[in-house]
Amino acid sequence: MSNINIDQLNTMPSDYRARLINSLSGFKSANLVASRSKNGVNNLAIFSSVFHLGASPALVGFVTRPNTVERHTLANIQQTKQFTINQVNSGFWQAAHQTSARYDANVCEFEQTGLTVEEIDNINVPFVKESKLKYALTLREIIPMEINNTLLIVGEISHIICMQNAIKKDGYIDLQELNTVSVSGLDSYHTSQRLSRLSYAKPDQLLTLLNVDGQPDYL
Amino acid sequence: MSNINIDQLNTMPSDYRARLINSLSGFKSANLVASRSKNGVNNLAIFSSVFHLGASPALVGFVTRPNTVERHTLANIQQTKQFTINQVNSGFWQAAHQTSARYDANVCEFEQTGLTVEEIDNINVPFVKESKLKYALTLREIIPMEINNTLLIVGEISHIICMQNAIKKDGYIDLQELNTVSVSGLDSYHTSQRLSRLSYAKPDQLLTLLNVDGQPDYL
Repeated sequence: MSNINIDQLNTMPSDYRARLINSLSGFKSANLVASRSKNGVNNLAIFSSVFHLGASPALVGFVTRPNTVERHTLANIQQTKQFTINQVNSGFWQAAHQTSARYDANVCEFEQTGLTVEEIDNINVPFVKESKLKYALTLREIIPMEINNTLLIVGEISHIICMQNAIKKDGYIDLQELNTVSVSGLDSYHTSQRLSRLSYAKPDQLLTLLNVDGQPDYL
Repeated sequence: MSNINIDQLNTMPSDYRARLINSLSGFKSANLVASRSKNGVNNLAIFSSVFHLGASPALVGFVTRPNTVERHTLANIQQTKQFTINQVNSGFWQAAHQTSARYDANVCEFEQTGLTVEEIDNINVPFVKESKLKYALTLREIIPMEINNTLLIVGEISHIICMQNAIKKDGYIDLQELNTVSVSGLDSYHTSQRLSRLSYAKPDQLLTLLNVDGQPDYL
């Protein structure tokens, strides 16, 4: 086993260090955050930091930096209080990665990457048509992380669009059926293979393997 | 496509809603947080909310609730300011899930689940021996999320232990070689298959597929 201490961490080349540290949290979600400026320019940016914050109210958070390409996303969300999150699948993972290029603010990443703007109901923010699980959010909080000048954006989910047969009877969504991808490190994309669902854990009780519908799996 | 609005969300049975909302962020990391009380009782709890916060300083965050089984983890971290994060792999994913059972505070989840305490150097907090990528952290911040009473725990990485051949020349860690698993929803575990690494995206430039070592892949 490699054993890396803080002195070695502090003297690593910054690129090497960024790749190493970005691998530590494990597999990360791959999502496109879509927003619209007050001038009507659509923006699209990939984030690997979207995380579940709570089910009631239905809250999701993600981390952004104030001074990077992602500032267009941040500026739009600050202006309109609205955004969408669109899960990346294996049908457009390379186009999704391309949204991380440093395009100018007046350039639309949808046009540059070939992804398709989708307007749904009367929600005034774009969705990604190619995504099979996507949702609209209203900005609830922007929490400045003083420790490293990142910002934590917290949104409340108002509207969910999902391929119907992926939603199982107990509410579980089969992300594998949606071909949702995950990210490792800064630049690696992965599909997934389910080991199993598992029963709710209780002390002194054996776990049961559950199938995708949440039923005991006696295979 | 299913189209679920906020009124439907608000009237769902809470179990169904929890499974649905927990599926929205995409694949989540699977990690065991290990800690030790001031009385020397080791604690182990699975979290699917560990996320990368920054590389310099090297920061990782996770979300916890103040009033659940995970309170033992929180209490220990508040007491000692130390914890470890241990990636879950396909060799012990069921034991890892079992740590979510509501054991009493004086019960050691290592003993209950068969996972092995590992002491490394003079770090006074346990690691999980079965994990092939694990690191020690010092508590930096606890941020209360007023919107839903969760807490965001932020730690700085001080010490990394990783299976040597999984660390590639450019710092990328091959999580697939470590058999690291991911989580979807509340209870589903997944292995991964790499699509590819990708080159750094630039405007008006095609992406290059990279192999696991970060070199152009001309297969």
